[in-house]
Amino acid sequence: MPATGSGKEREIVGAALALFRDKGYHATSMQDIADAVGLQKGSLYHYLASKEELLYRIALDTISEYDRRLEDIVGSELPAAEKLRRAVQAHVLMQSDDVGTVTLLRDSGALQPEQREVIRGLTRRYADLVETVIAGGIASGEFRAVDAKMATFAILGACNWIHRWYAPGGRLTPEAISAAYTDFFLRGLGSG
Amino acid sequence: MPATGSGKEREIVGAALALFRDKGYHATSMQDIADAVGLQKGSLYHYLASKEELLYRIALDTISEYDRRLEDIVGSELPAAEKLRRAVQAHVLMQSDDVGTVTLLRDSGALQPEQREVIRGLTRRYADLVETVIAGGIASGEFRAVDAKMATFAILGACNWIHRWYAPGGRLTPEAISAAYTDFFLRGLGSG
Repeated sequence: MPATGSGKEREIVGAALALFRDKGYHATSMQDIADAVGLQKGSLYHYLASKEELLYRIALDTISEYDRRLEDIVGSELPAAEKLRRAVQAHVLMQSDDVGTVTLLRDSGALQPEQREVIRGLTRRYADLVETVIAGGIASGEFRAVDAKMATFAILGACNWIHRWYAPGGRLTPEAISAAYTDFFLRGLGSG
Repeated sequence: MPATGSGKEREIVGAALALFRDKGYHATSMQDIADAVGLQKGSLYHYLASKEELLYRIALDTISEYDRRLEDIVGSELPAAEKLRRAVQAHVLMQSDDVGTVTLLRDSGALQPEQREVIRGLTRRYADLVETVIAGGIASGEFRAVDAKMATFAILGACNWIHRWYAPGGRLTPEAISAAYTDFFLRGLGSG
């Protein structure tokens, strides 16, 4: 997630990111966040109205970063297989590195309906971009004629599960995961 | 999830299943559950000690049912590709039909550490069984020599994502999803 806002605000968002990831959004209190940044709980409300505001900001910044990286790849003139390879690589890096990913994927259900709709819209945008790559590869003959929507869901599901099992420093590095997943998906699509 | 316990207990678990799925575990109160089964909140405590007890029971019953179905398939004498096809079919049916799946996958983090460990153990058992099928297929030459663990994670991730997008009555029926996913995975494994 990119850092935004003033110094203290960034510090609060950073503390919330780590607490939400490690304890979960629901188990984290405003007191926990205040303690982590050395503020009285009352002073914390000077910077934000509620814990939910932090959740929304983290979810929004995280999905926006996923979208931004994918848009750069999809907007290029590369063959579909290479776009897919780079998309998987970018997604694996976000899953293994980005501290907001777990909060986005696990806790977004706690947002207000209108906030949830914004996040859902950006998440749908991400899936639509992946589907565009697959449909483009089918149209150009690079990929076999699969159902592009189901292939998209399968690939995104596989990639969105990584943060659940990934262990930093283990045998399965982000590079190894990217390579194995890309190989698996491209074979599944009749390419590579 | 299979129904167990006395009539009123089953009714309480059934009400909790639907409430946890629709509102989320954290947003559901003991009062909501009491209202759903026509009990005073005080009487509800006659049947269970806490909301967490219901969460544990739902998570445990659900993962146990996933395991049971997979064990039946893996224990058979079928070729690896057929085992994988049946495993995906069983998993897709649980994702699209079983009301406990969303609670298991989304809310298990709210369990006590020792309860969470039990659920994790049964979840690992499930993944190990899938890995056994893939490793068996590689050993017999049915599948190409992929990393069996990463192929397992990719397949389970794809399958565990289904409950997030599946819409009953839509174009993508459980049968269509099973067929498309099996085809995609088997091609990825160099078979089918």
